[in-house]
Amino acid sequence: MNHYPEAILKLIRHLCKLPGIGEKSAERFAMHLLTAPDEEVAGLAGSIADLKKQVKVCNTCFCLSDRQTCRICSDPGRDHGLVCVVESPADMAAVEKSGSYPGVYHVLQGLLSPMDGIGPEELRIRELVGRVAAGKVSEVVIATSTSVEGEATADYITRALKSYSVKITRIASGVPMGGELKYIDQVTLKKALEARRAV
Amino acid sequence: MNHYPEAILKLIRHLCKLPGIGEKSAERFAMHLLTAPDEEVAGLAGSIADLKKQVKVCNTCFCLSDRQTCRICSDPGRDHGLVCVVESPADMAAVEKSGSYPGVYHVLQGLLSPMDGIGPEELRIRELVGRVAAGKVSEVVIATSTSVEGEATADYITRALKSYSVKITRIASGVPMGGELKYIDQVTLKKALEARRAV
Repeated sequence: MNHYPEAILKLIRHLCKLPGIGEKSAERFAMHLLTAPDEEVAGLAGSIADLKKQVKVCNTCFCLSDRQTCRICSDPGRDHGLVCVVESPADMAAVEKSGSYPGVYHVLQGLLSPMDGIGPEELRIRELVGRVAAGKVSEVVIATSTSVEGEATADYITRALKSYSVKITRIASGVPMGGELKYIDQVTLKKALEARRAV
Repeated sequence: MNHYPEAILKLIRHLCKLPGIGEKSAERFAMHLLTAPDEEVAGLAGSIADLKKQVKVCNTCFCLSDRQTCRICSDPGRDHGLVCVVESPADMAAVEKSGSYPGVYHVLQGLLSPMDGIGPEELRIRELVGRVAAGKVSEVVIATSTSVEGEATADYITRALKSYSVKITRIASGVPMGGELKYIDQVTLKKALEARRAV
């Protein structure tokens, strides 16, 4: 690569840090940017530089927002008694995209992971307990991932909220839509059988 | 997507313009940048903004360079009588990576493509003829792609240089290394048979 000018090599090194981007893709992006219109390149550089300055965290649900209280938390049309607990803003976006959720959110900003030094204090669990203790929440839907960390976090939250008179639910585990039974792992199939429903 | 703050949506729109990047990857990059260290984000933004300012074009071979004459053109260890003609800086990088080329380059900055309004005047063909006319070039290796446009450009250059006493060669076409004959297209196989060599 060292036959490229230093400015290109520097850009390639920076682009390589993006998730899933190797040297080849980074080189392709750099070549694209070199021939792209000036305003497109300036726009990309500017929006990266401004990102952290302009994005705040909602002081109620801790999702990403451009104001102190996010659009969902300040929407009177949402059910503020129904709180969906997710790991990250991207998970919240996934639930929103499903178009089937009428309530509000609580973004933990991580999952319990003692190996990485992430305990309950590092997450927004105390704030969740605070929202429940305030008495206006009727149901907490725990929608953390079904990974080991996600399950452990769901367990921890369930125990933390047990003493409050709030309904606690967990999203269903089972065979994903379009999934073929022969390719589904045993644990998922076991969960799907246990959670079978009358039709 | 409209549950993200505007700064994130703007960044996603810009990232989507990169080649091969869709909305999902752009969202992933944006989430990565939000949690990345400040100096990494500033470094990326800065290297994109500086790119076009710092990258020049070599005034001999028209490759990308950080000075008026590129590293290769000003290297006394290279064979300046051997000129490899390529379409783009990325193609030049590919030839350099092969580690088997001792000469210098000439970057056309495109291929003939009448459909897109690219004629000989839009490419650096006149400058190539000028280099040959100056009399110090002994061989021109035409290394444009083997696409329709690449072959047409190679033909055009061959005709343009015919009146000069310079050896004109074209890179070999044939079965790529590691290629299985049964999967190779007929035109490639025909070329490989025609160009067979004594062993």
